[in-house]
Amino acid sequence: MSKKVVIVGGVAAGPKAACHLKRSQPDWDVTIVDQDNLISYGGCGIPYYVGGDVTEEKELRSTSFNMVRDASFFADTKGVNVLTRTRALAIDRQHKKLQVKNLDSGAEQELPYDTLMLATGAAPVVLPIPGADLDGVFTVADLHKAIEIKQRIAGGKVGQVVVIGGGAIGLEMAESFADLWGLETTLVEFMPQLLPRLIDADFATMLQRHLEEMNVTVFTGEGATEIVGDSEGRAVAVTTAKRTLPADLVIMAAGVRPRSELAQEAGLAVEPWGGITVNNRLQTSDPDIYAAGDCIAVKHLVTGKQAFAPMGSLANREGRVAADNMAGLATTFEGAVGSFIMKAFDRCIAATGLTYEAALAEGFAADYSLTAPDDRAHFFPTSASVAFQLVFDKRTRQILGLQCFGMMNDSISARINAAAVMISKRATIEDCMLAEMAYAPPFSAAVDSLNAAACVADNICAGRMRSLSMQRFSAWMDDFSREPDWLVLDIRHPTEAQPFVEKFGAEKWLAIVYDKVRTQYNEIPQDKTLIIFCGSGNRAYDIQIFLDYMGLRNSFVVAGGMKVIRWMGAEWLPQS
Amino acid sequence: MSKKVVIVGGVAAGPKAACHLKRSQPDWDVTIVDQDNLISYGGCGIPYYVGGDVTEEKELRSTSFNMVRDASFFADTKGVNVLTRTRALAIDRQHKKLQVKNLDSGAEQELPYDTLMLATGAAPVVLPIPGADLDGVFTVADLHKAIEIKQRIAGGKVGQVVVIGGGAIGLEMAESFADLWGLETTLVEFMPQLLPRLIDADFATMLQRHLEEMNVTVFTGEGATEIVGDSEGRAVAVTTAKRTLPADLVIMAAGVRPRSELAQEAGLAVEPWGGITVNNRLQTSDPDIYAAGDCIAVKHLVTGKQAFAPMGSLANREGRVAADNMAGLATTFEGAVGSFIMKAFDRCIAATGLTYEAALAEGFAADYSLTAPDDRAHFFPTSASVAFQLVFDKRTRQILGLQCFGMMNDSISARINAAAVMISKRATIEDCMLAEMAYAPPFSAAVDSLNAAACVADNICAGRMRSLSMQRFSAWMDDFSREPDWLVLDIRHPTEAQPFVEKFGAEKWLAIVYDKVRTQYNEIPQDKTLIIFCGSGNRAYDIQIFLDYMGLRNSFVVAGGMKVIRWMGAEWLPQS
Repeated sequence: MSKKVVIVGGVAAGPKAACHLKRSQPDWDVTIVDQDNLISYGGCGIPYYVGGDVTEEKELRSTSFNMVRDASFFADTKGVNVLTRTRALAIDRQHKKLQVKNLDSGAEQELPYDTLMLATGAAPVVLPIPGADLDGVFTVADLHKAIEIKQRIAGGKVGQVVVIGGGAIGLEMAESFADLWGLETTLVEFMPQLLPRLIDADFATMLQRHLEEMNVTVFTGEGATEIVGDSEGRAVAVTTAKRTLPADLVIMAAGVRPRSELAQEAGLAVEPWGGITVNNRLQTSDPDIYAAGDCIAVKHLVTGKQAFAPMGSLANREGRVAADNMAGLATTFEGAVGSFIMKAFDRCIAATGLTYEAALAEGFAADYSLTAPDDRAHFFPTSASVAFQLVFDKRTRQILGLQCFGMMNDSISARINAAAVMISKRATIEDCMLAEMAYAPPFSAAVDSLNAAACVADNICAGRMRSLSMQRFSAWMDDFSREPDWLVLDIRHPTEAQPFVEKFGAEKWLAIVYDKVRTQYNEIPQDKTLIIFCGSGNRAYDIQIFLDYMGLRNSFVVAGGMKVIRWMGAEWLPQS
Repeated sequence: MSKKVVIVGGVAAGPKAACHLKRSQPDWDVTIVDQDNLISYGGCGIPYYVGGDVTEEKELRSTSFNMVRDASFFADTKGVNVLTRTRALAIDRQHKKLQVKNLDSGAEQELPYDTLMLATGAAPVVLPIPGADLDGVFTVADLHKAIEIKQRIAGGKVGQVVVIGGGAIGLEMAESFADLWGLETTLVEFMPQLLPRLIDADFATMLQRHLEEMNVTVFTGEGATEIVGDSEGRAVAVTTAKRTLPADLVIMAAGVRPRSELAQEAGLAVEPWGGITVNNRLQTSDPDIYAAGDCIAVKHLVTGKQAFAPMGSLANREGRVAADNMAGLATTFEGAVGSFIMKAFDRCIAATGLTYEAALAEGFAADYSLTAPDDRAHFFPTSASVAFQLVFDKRTRQILGLQCFGMMNDSISARINAAAVMISKRATIEDCMLAEMAYAPPFSAAVDSLNAAACVADNICAGRMRSLSMQRFSAWMDDFSREPDWLVLDIRHPTEAQPFVEKFGAEKWLAIVYDKVRTQYNEIPQDKTLIIFCGSGNRAYDIQIFLDYMGLRNSFVVAGGMKVIRWMGAEWLPQS
């Protein structure tokens, strides 16, 4: 029997559900309503459109075979009706009707439905600060804003940009301004680190350092307090508690929140933070109303809690599951592990599952291995080092999360995706140690970087390896009086160790090269706590084992070693 | 209590086990014996050394921090004894002694052990054909052979090379000869396709075509019958049943077999094909003797059968597990799914799990989805198409295998590794549809290529999509009389379809563009079987659904579409 399905929202989850539903139920009447005239676009591509990697906005709403996805495309190729410039005003659940208004004509009408689906997406947060409504202040809300931002820059009217917010969108926008347009770009983030909650602090530091190398000025721990305008109402500066930053263009990228007002007003269950509550078939509290995309609450597969996961990729998956269930096909959407990846100039940063900080906060017996493996066989010419942080539960040995920072290529995807599958399947350290990563020297090391991270986790769990956090090591390097009995044992090549010995003196920085420690270990003072230091932590671990065996059990490994320190940057490093 | 451990074999599994064991049991006496003087090298790097990506052979046996891994390295840094140039002659299991012989002095001695480990590796198969022992005929057995091959080419003595064997090593060697050295390179493979058993025929065809574009001449279905020598005993040609190929250098890359003679002579259980039988703790039939690496039989995690999996990556994993068990730590090695990846000039080819042919042979209700998705957001400038073949069981919906062919970067690793984890966890099509692939436009499409492959598999299982194999379609294009009532419905852009209509006539090749089919479908003959044709199969599937709905149910989709056909190459394609 043919049914009427109405879908509110035409960007990602909505069109995906509509098209998939029409394929399983070609005789159903499927209508999408969207208040915009531009629909079905790759919103995640906006920074690449602004930055010029994507030349025209049409590319963001075209298929791979170059057809523009507008209302007639959906009618002609999919048999899906689309009402653009049509705002959903209210849901009459009793009579199963959606009240809508045409934004051009002002005409209102009621659309009857058998099944309704909400794909209302997310809206950018507009900070409640003075000047938020000035000319030249933009959120990255939709394609119209993107077009306007690009036009303004292309028109030569912009020299200085301030981006408010160091989340993924803010960072991607900052890159697009600095990279192609060469604008003087400053980013302010209220929290003490970039990508708060998505990555741990060390990784945020590595990212920030690279942005700074690429001429993006970054201030963390500084929220924007005001946007200053000139007499004509144009933004000219952003102020924080510490400074005033001149700006011709201000991007407010302070996060997004689910658009759930329609659901709320219709009395549907909504999480306290605004996400529409759904079951694993993506039904809301009204079984005839489905919801998918950025507007819903998604179960986090590690914590089991309802979470906000506004990702175009999840929206598409959810759209398909919602469509199947509307059609009576029993597929389920069980939740998400929260995979995330981002290009930042010449680097890639990614994470999946929980950060160490989040895992601790959730009550896990969390620990992590910090490693700096090569992304492929070290003898292969394109090989480069990567930083990995594998978060696990010491008690259950469950893998909880992975973070990676490295070169801009797909090698990090290759590990993050595998880890995401593992995490969703509640894999253990053993699973991760033995995971079969496809091996040939141009693609991987024989012990793949992901396997290696799990091996270190295993060493930590087994009590064989004791490591020192970067924070604690750096704090001590800044102020030796914190731990007067500490001594670095640098086992790198003498030419690498020499500048450190010269700078800090042998009483703080003792150099004995790796392959001489077994014969020269009696040169090591017995009354010191040794901080064993090498390029990545691997050799240091070997030496820790040996010294333990020799009765010198008071040592820590600097996990990640010199590689991670160099990526993070440190004032105390000798000039090279 | 300290124990004596003796390990036979010093390339991959042996050194890994020795070093890991010394870390958990620093007071144990661990000795490696190897008949070679060069040990602990990256054998998989040999083609890259010969091809010049790796300059010196020392790089293949150096650590990432540039120390050469020789006997004194293992003694000085790991506390592991290594006896090089020492051949293991026999195992005296009763008295727990290994009889060894020094190949330089000829002296024999007995090494007592508490635990013995066999890591004897694999040996290249030497084909029993005339001329196999001529000067200029090489197997890729070890580093010495590699050095000799490279010296011979560098000496300017080689103009023409014939590689016998189209497995991974043969292909990698062929690339190294043709790419850096510009040698006239011919490869012969006895089986009807390249990479037999590793990939299905369509993928072998795509690979072969690329090799030919890169000036490697390939003959499949032709075994070498003889190597012809000159009067001085130097190889000058290779003959097959069909031709004689001049050659100054012949590489015999006809596969490898486990080196298990020592185990066999000691009465240990060995599979009929030669792999040493081990349990999941990597113990042989003698619990005091472990085995790991290329010499063992590994359980295939999809078929459950004992399989040969000679991979440096697995050898390292097995070495760690063996060491843990020798030390009394209970880790297990459950088996392998058989992941494989290879660089071939500008392309990457990879597979994991079972091929379609293998899955059928194993009795699975096997089917596959053949797709040609983009490796990242299609609007992102570096995006490129990839061919995917996802093999599944129609009855259980279990994922059985994945094959990919695409550009030479890490994007295929990112999907193969995730699929390998899924396969090892017995994931279903649903799991694969919803797998959380990290998304941003520079890395992935919103519906990731792997998710998309699973969606097509779902469509096939649901009976919504009926597709035609490339073989059957190509056979018909070569000879229309095979299926006189077939008609192609080409729904691509008119400029793409036009040359085909001109060449084959509208009675065999009807063009109606995608977005016009819904209005012009009555131009389609009712009495024909329609072969719906587009760029990749996606649009064709949409149209199949629509035509089914309109009562025209006699149609097939050309899965993979024009993209896959172009990669495979076809004589019948119109000149463009």
